[in-house]
Amino acid sequence: MCQLLGMNCNTPTDIVFSFEGFRRRAGLTDCHSDGFGIAFFEGKGVRVFRDNNAAHSSPIADCVKQYHIKSLNVIAHIRKATQGEVNIENTHPFIRELWGQNWVFAHNGNLTTKFDLNNSLYQPIGSTDSEAAFCYMVSELKTRFKIKPTEDELFDALQQITHTISTGGTFNFILSNGEWMIAHCSTNLHYLTRKAPFGKAQRVDDDGIIDFNDYAKEGDLVTIITTFPLTKDETWTKMEYGGFVFFKQGEKIAEIIGVKREAIDDGTLGLAKCA
Amino acid sequence: MCQLLGMNCNTPTDIVFSFEGFRRRAGLTDCHSDGFGIAFFEGKGVRVFRDNNAAHSSPIADCVKQYHIKSLNVIAHIRKATQGEVNIENTHPFIRELWGQNWVFAHNGNLTTKFDLNNSLYQPIGSTDSEAAFCYMVSELKTRFKIKPTEDELFDALQQITHTISTGGTFNFILSNGEWMIAHCSTNLHYLTRKAPFGKAQRVDDDGIIDFNDYAKEGDLVTIITTFPLTKDETWTKMEYGGFVFFKQGEKIAEIIGVKREAIDDGTLGLAKCA
Repeated sequence: MCQLLGMNCNTPTDIVFSFEGFRRRAGLTDCHSDGFGIAFFEGKGVRVFRDNNAAHSSPIADCVKQYHIKSLNVIAHIRKATQGEVNIENTHPFIRELWGQNWVFAHNGNLTTKFDLNNSLYQPIGSTDSEAAFCYMVSELKTRFKIKPTEDELFDALQQITHTISTGGTFNFILSNGEWMIAHCSTNLHYLTRKAPFGKAQRVDDDGIIDFNDYAKEGDLVTIITTFPLTKDETWTKMEYGGFVFFKQGEKIAEIIGVKREAIDDGTLGLAKCA
Repeated sequence: MCQLLGMNCNTPTDIVFSFEGFRRRAGLTDCHSDGFGIAFFEGKGVRVFRDNNAAHSSPIADCVKQYHIKSLNVIAHIRKATQGEVNIENTHPFIRELWGQNWVFAHNGNLTTKFDLNNSLYQPIGSTDSEAAFCYMVSELKTRFKIKPTEDELFDALQQITHTISTGGTFNFILSNGEWMIAHCSTNLHYLTRKAPFGKAQRVDDDGIIDFNDYAKEGDLVTIITTFPLTKDETWTKMEYGGFVFFKQGEKIAEIIGVKREAIDDGTLGLAKCA
C-alpha cells in the first residue's frame, strides 16, 4: 500500500510544509519507502520528480524542498510496493496526455482485476496494477469522448469507470488535469480547505509548525487531500467508501458521499507491520 | 533555435561531464537560455528534469549534477525559443507512451508546417512546432503499426515520416525509446563513440578535463550525439543534411548518409546575434 497527497488551490502555493511531513512517512514515521514521486502543474506543463529511494532521505526530495515550486495542482505519492518491482517505471504519479492535457494519477490500494490493454489506446509501461487501472481509465474516456467533454460528463463517466475498476479491490486515487482535482476513496482519504481566517498548524509527523498568516492572503483557497491527516490541530474531513470529491480552484464543486464502513486496516497504517 | 545532447551506451553511464559543458551554452558560452530539460531512462522508466530557467544557473540542473544518475539513454535540450512561450509545457524533451514504452524526443530547428492533429491519437499540450511534429510522428507510427514493429520497419517508417516533416523546415532531432537512440540531421549534429583505449578529453566550453580511464572499462561503448562538439581533442563526426544514425548499446547499427551542403547558420551559433 501507499500514501497519497494532493493539493488544489486558487493561487500558486508552495506545498513544502505538507510534503515535509508526508515524506517522513517514507521511512521515519511509517514505512512507505519503496520510492516516491511528486508532480507539479505549471500552466499546462508538469514538472515531475521521481526516485526509487525513500522520500525521507532522497536527494531528489531534498531538491524539491529547496526549490519551493509554487503550483495550483500537485500530486505526490510514497510507495510501499504490493505489485511490481521497486523501480522508476513503477513509481507514481503516472502521466498520460489526454485531449491535449497532462493527466496525472496516483493510487493507493491493491487491485486484482486483469485489464485487457493489448489493443487499448493507452498501455502501461511498468507492471503495477495502478498504472494498468489508469491506462484503462484514460482509454475508456478517450473512447467515449473523442473531444474533451464537459466537467459534468467527465465526472459522471469517471464514476462509472471507477465503479468497474473498484470491483477488483481497493482504489483510492487522486487525479488532476491541471484544471481540477478529483479524488476517490475506497478506504482511507481525508481532506481540508484552508481559507481566511488563517491560523497556525502543527504537523503530525515531526511537530513542525507553520502560521499560514505569514504566507496566505484574503481570498486564498488551498485544499489538501491525503491518506491520513498531516496536521493535528485542523479539522480534516474523512471520506468514506465510494466517495468522490471534485475540487477546482481550491473549492469543492461536486461530491458523491460515500458509505460508512468499519475501519479497514488495508496496510496503509504500516508501522506495526513493517517497523 | 536550440541545442541537443544525447547519450546511448552499453553500460549505465554518468553524463555529467558532457552535461556540464553543454549547460554552459545556456547563458555563458552561448545563448540557449529559454529553459532546459534532461530525460534519463532507467529501465523502461524515465526521470525527467525541466526548468524554464537557463540551464547554466538552474538549481534543477545543479540537482542533476549532484545526483550523478547513470543511464543507458539520456536526451537533453537547451532552448532558445522560436515558437511558443518560455514555460514548462514548451520545454523539451517531450515524452509520449507508444506501444507500452516511453518515447523521448528533442528537436532543434524551426518548422512552418501546420499539422492537423485535432483527431490524432496524440495531441500537443504546449504550443511549439517541435511537440506538434513529435505528436504527428508518433500518431503516424501508431496508425501504421498497431503493435510494435521490428527495428528495420521502424527505421524505414521514421525516415518516411521525417521526410514529410522536413519539408516544413529545419528538423534536427534525437529520439529514444530506452532501447535505442535515433538522430536526424537537417543542419548541425555531431557524434562520437568512446571506447577502449580510453583517453583524456577537454571540454570546449570551460576547458574541464576528464580521463575516461578513471571511469570506463574494456568493452564499454558510450556514444554522444550533440549539436556542436563538446570536446576539443576528440574526433567528432559531422552529420550532413538528411542524415540518420541509429545507435543501440552504444554502437551504430544503421545509418543514412546525408548530403553535404553549404554551412548553414540556422541561429544555432547564437552568440554573435544574442550576446
